[in-house]
Amino acid sequence: MTVSDPCRLTAGEASAAMAAGDLTAVALLTACLDRIDTRDPAVRAWLYVARESALADARRLDVERRSGRVRGPLHGIPIALKDVIDVAGMPGTHNSPLHEGRVPVDDAGCVALMRAAGAIPLGKLDTVEFAALGRLPKTVNPHRLTHTAGGSSSGSGAAVGDLQVPISFGTQTGGSVMRPASYCGTYAMKPTWGVVSREGAKLFAASLDTIGWYARSVGDLRLVAAASGIADGSGTRREVSTLRIALCQTPYADRARDGALTVLTRAADALKAAGATVERLELPTSFAEIDDAKDTIMRGEGRAAFLPALLTRGEELHDTLRGIAEFRSGITPMTLKAAQDFAGHARMAYEGHYRGYDAVLTFGATGEADGGLESTGNSVFNSLWTLLHLPVIGLPAGDGPTGLPIGVQLVGFRYADDTLLDVAAAAAPVIDPWCGKVRVPAG
Amino acid sequence: MTVSDPCRLTAGEASAAMAAGDLTAVALLTACLDRIDTRDPAVRAWLYVARESALADARRLDVERRSGRVRGPLHGIPIALKDVIDVAGMPGTHNSPLHEGRVPVDDAGCVALMRAAGAIPLGKLDTVEFAALGRLPKTVNPHRLTHTAGGSSSGSGAAVGDLQVPISFGTQTGGSVMRPASYCGTYAMKPTWGVVSREGAKLFAASLDTIGWYARSVGDLRLVAAASGIADGSGTRREVSTLRIALCQTPYADRARDGALTVLTRAADALKAAGATVERLELPTSFAEIDDAKDTIMRGEGRAAFLPALLTRGEELHDTLRGIAEFRSGITPMTLKAAQDFAGHARMAYEGHYRGYDAVLTFGATGEADGGLESTGNSVFNSLWTLLHLPVIGLPAGDGPTGLPIGVQLVGFRYADDTLLDVAAAAAPVIDPWCGKVRVPAG
Repeated sequence: MTVSDPCRLTAGEASAAMAAGDLTAVALLTACLDRIDTRDPAVRAWLYVARESALADARRLDVERRSGRVRGPLHGIPIALKDVIDVAGMPGTHNSPLHEGRVPVDDAGCVALMRAAGAIPLGKLDTVEFAALGRLPKTVNPHRLTHTAGGSSSGSGAAVGDLQVPISFGTQTGGSVMRPASYCGTYAMKPTWGVVSREGAKLFAASLDTIGWYARSVGDLRLVAAASGIADGSGTRREVSTLRIALCQTPYADRARDGALTVLTRAADALKAAGATVERLELPTSFAEIDDAKDTIMRGEGRAAFLPALLTRGEELHDTLRGIAEFRSGITPMTLKAAQDFAGHARMAYEGHYRGYDAVLTFGATGEADGGLESTGNSVFNSLWTLLHLPVIGLPAGDGPTGLPIGVQLVGFRYADDTLLDVAAAAAPVIDPWCGKVRVPAG
Repeated sequence: MTVSDPCRLTAGEASAAMAAGDLTAVALLTACLDRIDTRDPAVRAWLYVARESALADARRLDVERRSGRVRGPLHGIPIALKDVIDVAGMPGTHNSPLHEGRVPVDDAGCVALMRAAGAIPLGKLDTVEFAALGRLPKTVNPHRLTHTAGGSSSGSGAAVGDLQVPISFGTQTGGSVMRPASYCGTYAMKPTWGVVSREGAKLFAASLDTIGWYARSVGDLRLVAAASGIADGSGTRREVSTLRIALCQTPYADRARDGALTVLTRAADALKAAGATVERLELPTSFAEIDDAKDTIMRGEGRAAFLPALLTRGEELHDTLRGIAEFRSGITPMTLKAAQDFAGHARMAYEGHYRGYDAVLTFGATGEADGGLESTGNSVFNSLWTLLHLPVIGLPAGDGPTGLPIGVQLVGFRYADDTLLDVAAAAAPVIDPWCGKVRVPAG
């Protein structure tokens, strides 16, 4: 067979086609570049496309494959990086005017891991400034070009959701990986805090910052996890009927707009109908302040991240970032310590509370993406899991009232990333109406 | 007055002399360069000396001062950086064969803070490879050239202890700042985890890694803390008689060799004699496994740090680092989670246990520096405080049986770095026999 539109393949499908001799890395890359040329003037996901170096990589990887050498599970697969993640020799601006023209000399840890597995870094994706606050990205939602793609990993969600690249990387300090996944109709994974090197990614809040990735199937999420050393390549097949899922609307259920609750309920019902055990089990009442604790830690630790810029180039620093560096929100040593201790308690309490379940099922976002680009949306359903250091997988789960995608999240247990991938693989065909099909964005 | 040997000045004294017109930044820098030329062929603290850029900085800062502009409390003061901390445009090898010739494009966060305060980055200091394990530094102890300076911040402790530079930076994941301070007879500070940006320093274990600094007085430690935004410039004067100190030998008292216990006891007795309250209060018995928990977290988180190098350039990676990346020590998700939860509990328990005390007084190291360069010594008296995220100040406290320096540590409370500096300032004249004098290394 020949592959008519390689952009529509998942990374796993493309790998299989390359192994069968039906596709080359150059052909796959060329298809991605064509789609970028066609679509990105409208979607605006990319800050930099490394055409020449990527083509050179693809040619080299094709030669290696023909001579029988396959580097790893991503041999010849293009990937793209949020612009807060360094790629040696590519611009790395953090979407900040402070770093125009910056070209780092090192690959970030996650980029090195992907290169070792044979992936091709194709370019850099737009982001909220420093993956934090400040200058907003120009990226729009590929499903409706007047709407936000979410943030802060805006370009990462949009580029994968728009079939411009099969895999992208983002970062999450609050909800910066998971919200764009929900808005853009993609899968995404945020692993357990600390298990994937975040070296070479801009620091925001050290106890929260986590590398995450986007793809169009759970299988592709696993390919990246395997290349990152946190999952094996094939996983353990689970029957959906064996799953024990805790349905949790969090203390912030009142922030969910109608579409989000409808989609979450449908996902839970579909799992039940497929034989899974789904039981409503909310977080312990002691978790009521978890979003406040997250905010205190994010801003409290963020001060260290932005103080050097404040003191060296303060006049160029966006006022919201100045505000963090100046501790304007009134964080004190006592409130920061209390928030850190709350987080320590909550991490332990979560484990006991949900023991016996395979995962927690919860909202992916408060609803559909908002119109306009003045806001990248609300992270209240994402941030708490980041604070808890838990692995999270986002899955497309349906559309909202105006036809934009809405996702759900499956939340696992610390350091059990591999197990969560198994759970998500079993749940995805039931939850995601597009599972196994290609959704071409209508925007 | 004129300053006959500016190398002997603390940063605070040099600043005062510059403000009075008795010293220039160029003269101070030239004195440091002369001492480096004289001494460093034997001490081997430096991997790179940036003579030209430092002299250019010094000339510029002298011009600025003459025109009435003073950047900050370190205006014209040379500083030096452990080679795992990036300085834009200077070699940054992490003392690793994997990074020969690497020249980063960004200043680390702490370097940017120091430049903003007027400091002059003078060069890079030798370190254990990646501030972790692997290739050992060539640095020797300035007090006895056949002995170790400690590690991993070996060059940082030795350069300040040898009067080659008034201030240096290191990093601590276990005991990498505090042990060289004890061995080299210097002061040092490791702040609360997370309050000083560690961006641009090589990652080892994300929940432990902390930037720290060396100086020859508590006042100089405060200058750096103030420039880092975690203390005010002057502090609050405490009378030593008002101090309430808890003496703690930790669960590892049996590792202390005779000199360490003698020095610690003398420090406690001297504080008592000066009117301070000193009461023995050991850690809760639940802390017995704290060093094991630290080791599990260091190696468990360290896997993420070294896996990219293993998978891209594994054949060049030192076998001990390969061992961490390959999880050879048998760490599992369950043991790592248990260690993280232990740490969370212990951080909270510490606060309650020592409430009412100003600081904990404990060993600085197990004893004098060892002979030979095959080991940088034992970090058992340093690592536990790193795990607890507590601010620590190391103070010279006397000599061991063979005449080499031994220090003690004062340990404070999370986010109360400023308060700990006040306590150390009051305690130092009582604890440190050389306080206010210049100790010229005899090695």
